Amino acid sequence: MYFLGIDLGGTSIKGGIVDKEGRILAQGQVPTKAQDGAEVVLAQMATLTEVLKVTAGIKESELQGAGVGIPGSVDVEKGLVRLAPNLHWSNFPLKEKMEKVLGIPVSLDNDAHVAALGEMWQGAGRNYKDILMVTIGTGIGSAVILDGEVRRGFWGYGAELGHVKVDPEGALCQCGGRGCLETLASATAIVHQVERELKRGRPSSLQHKPGLEAKDVLLAAREGDELALEVVNRAASYLGIALANAVFLLGPEVVIIGGGVAQAGEVILKPLKERFVEALGPWQIRPLPLLAARLGNKAGFVGAAYLALSLLEKGCNE
Amino acid sequence: MYFLGIDLGGTSIKGGIVDKEGRILAQGQVPTKAQDGAEVVLAQMATLTEVLKVTAGIKESELQGAGVGIPGSVDVEKGLVRLAPNLHWSNFPLKEKMEKVLGIPVSLDNDAHVAALGEMWQGAGRNYKDILMVTIGTGIGSAVILDGEVRRGFWGYGAELGHVKVDPEGALCQCGGRGCLETLASATAIVHQVERELKRGRPSSLQHKPGLEAKDVLLAAREGDELALEVVNRAASYLGIALANAVFLLGPEVVIIGGGVAQAGEVILKPLKERFVEALGPWQIRPLPLLAARLGNKAGFVGAAYLALSLLEKGCNE
Repeated sequence: MYFLGIDLGGTSIKGGIVDKEGRILAQGQVPTKAQDGAEVVLAQMATLTEVLKVTAGIKESELQGAGVGIPGSVDVEKGLVRLAPNLHWSNFPLKEKMEKVLGIPVSLDNDAHVAALGEMWQGAGRNYKDILMVTIGTGIGSAVILDGEVRRGFWGYGAELGHVKVDPEGALCQCGGRGCLETLASATAIVHQVERELKRGRPSSLQHKPGLEAKDVLLAAREGDELALEVVNRAASYLGIALANAVFLLGPEVVIIGGGVAQAGEVILKPLKERFVEALGPWQIRPLPLLAARLGNKAGFVGAAYLALSLLEKGCNE
Repeated sequence: MYFLGIDLGGTSIKGGIVDKEGRILAQGQVPTKAQDGAEVVLAQMATLTEVLKVTAGIKESELQGAGVGIPGSVDVEKGLVRLAPNLHWSNFPLKEKMEKVLGIPVSLDNDAHVAALGEMWQGAGRNYKDILMVTIGTGIGSAVILDGEVRRGFWGYGAELGHVKVDPEGALCQCGGRGCLETLASATAIVHQVERELKRGRPSSLQHKPGLEAKDVLLAAREGDELALEVVNRAASYLGIALANAVFLLGPEVVIIGGGVAQAGEVILKPLKERFVEALGPWQIRPLPLLAARLGNKAGFVGAAYLALSLLEKGCNE
């Protein structure tokens, strides 16, 4: 039994074929071409799938199902992409479309959700069933897994740690809210804060750097640049406190931090962990593991494959 | 089948006998006498139980079990009161002691947890299975109920919304943390903030009021006192945002607000609700009910009786 996992991003589509023990038989990536419209994106996914099947050397009939991680909100039951701004999709019936193309059952979920499932299955979340995962990249994604299942909650879109209000007088977020964690601690927010200070004439090794990215800021912080350190520490501080506050409410067994920013390692994880532990204070009657994600950018397609596998297993049990 | 519910407070013990449909056959209250030691407290509970049984007119054998709500942290499995500062108890084997006295199964839980169970069973939480309840009194208690069960989480003591950090540079909390919600929005915090401003010479109708209590502040706010309004609005604002942030993580079906402060009504609930709705912003694809608790100070013993009932039912199913 093999499963196709697809991590549909705004820029690239990553995919893999995974067996039911979580071994990756093939993996690859193609550009999304979102600007060319949904049909082209679908064709890109179909092409990637064909390449993966050939690479894995499996027969058509051995592929049991596919899962897709979506950069946006998903109606899981209906198999509908409700809103994916990076793809310019709204209310797009992706499940139905893909099932027609691939001829196997397709299930969808939000990208942060599938990444968390991937880490639970094969990464830092192995051995845990109650997981809080946060993915710090362009935005801040999150997932709450309780008893092995993604919690979707009242509105169906799951946890939104990125939109927790940490500074009610703060900047306006893309979501329309004010002072969301995402406006202070995402890759985008880190770059914005540095750019603002540079414009004010603040000295920094990042001055005159064209096309500044979060990874440049993180690198500069590691090299001791004062401005970069200040911005990274502030982001880490907001993240650490927001995660501690989430723990006060959820009491997960583990907190996993993933995404590009977290991959920068100790320069952000160390101050984050310090503020996390400080904020939890005397309530930590035993230490709560705070772990870096392990699967990197494979978490999405591995988790998407797990989504397909787990739905098949549920179907069998019913 | 009848159940005894006891709400063990620092000052008074409230209790009732409740049938399995939630009807209250008898209710009463005695002083706790915590300063006289645990044996005296136990005797007070036994006396209250006898009075309740006589009032309800039920036979000894008809009482199937008892539940007790504890103002502190509880090891539910072991039936141990881990720490109850108001009672000066630590690691007190209350379940065992009470079972000896009463001759029926006794189960314990935290007071905020049993209050939430009470509201779920017979109050504002009827028809809901995923509930976030906050109890605003001297401190701030909270409970997360998912699928009808209190969530205890990794450390076993459940949700601690009162210790979410809302102002990292804020005042020191009794828990040792800094800027906990409890230091800004509990009854105690409301009184402290008013007293501090009065000392600074701020004019207010509350000047020279001996033994100032939160209810005086809430009354003054209702009558338009500027200082009282400012303090109450600030508390409401912190509460509204903290509850919205909790909703972003948990996605409950309903939020219930109980406790003495909440009983003051619209003067605090209206600004709280405004900030709550504002903080959730565009994420509210349908309105999430934010309700005042309905059982008042009966929630504790009704929920404690439900605890006893639900454990008995679980036992029967196993």
